[in-house]
Amino acid sequence: MELVDPKTGIEVLTRDACLRLLADDVVGRLGVVDGDVPMIFPVNYVLDGDAVVVRTTHGTKLDRGTHRRACFEIDAFDRASRTGWSVVVSGRLEVVTAADPSFKRLVALPVDPWADFDKPHWLRLVPHRITGRRVHH
Amino acid sequence: MELVDPKTGIEVLTRDACLRLLADDVVGRLGVVDGDVPMIFPVNYVLDGDAVVVRTTHGTKLDRGTHRRACFEIDAFDRASRTGWSVVVSGRLEVVTAADPSFKRLVALPVDPWADFDKPHWLRLVPHRITGRRVHH
Repeated sequence: MELVDPKTGIEVLTRDACLRLLADDVVGRLGVVDGDVPMIFPVNYVLDGDAVVVRTTHGTKLDRGTHRRACFEIDAFDRASRTGWSVVVSGRLEVVTAADPSFKRLVALPVDPWADFDKPHWLRLVPHRITGRRVHH
Repeated sequence: MELVDPKTGIEVLTRDACLRLLADDVVGRLGVVDGDVPMIFPVNYVLDGDAVVVRTTHGTKLDRGTHRRACFEIDAFDRASRTGWSVVVSGRLEVVTAADPSFKRLVALPVDPWADFDKPHWLRLVPHRITGRRVHH
């Protein structure tokens, strides 16, 4: 069932629809906070259940974002028809260490950063909320 | 001149290259903070000088994001060739009211939200920093 607000033309996507879209893509945007400063980083990712898993090197994403609130966004826009959709996952960012029971499973996942330098750290965004919207015309 | 890190395959874009990419697109992602929670909103925008201008209705972007630090991201990815670029603008989000000397100029700009409901508020992200990267293979 589609839930479209006739006033705004915005369709609210179900959680299942959001998870299907998340499972089908490989690149999105991680949002973290450093002090009061929001930051957005494009990242390669893979969906593991309903968690977003990314690999990273040392730096802001890891050092400032870990065990904190974070969000992750994917979208697709058709500029010609002025339509598009977006999915946002909001939750808590965890470091996955070798001691984590799911570490072996995670390192076998196809998280394959396009920038091919060493990214030895694994992060998992555990969702509190998954929302999606689609703009029609 | 291209500045490519041979270890990472990442090209650092100049500020001028970032501004050209920002001038050429119409949709991006606004990042704001609500308490300690980062949020990402897809938005239509227009570049005005080096400021990112968006229209919004009442809600989180306006009420929580105004006069605070915010960021704005655009990107393009080619999933087949595993390449892409991104530009991030980091700065302070201002409400532009009718009393603002540039209000008349701003409301004449082609900021044209795809979701066609009333968006009477104008926001301007005044940049502190504009950075861009391109991933090659």
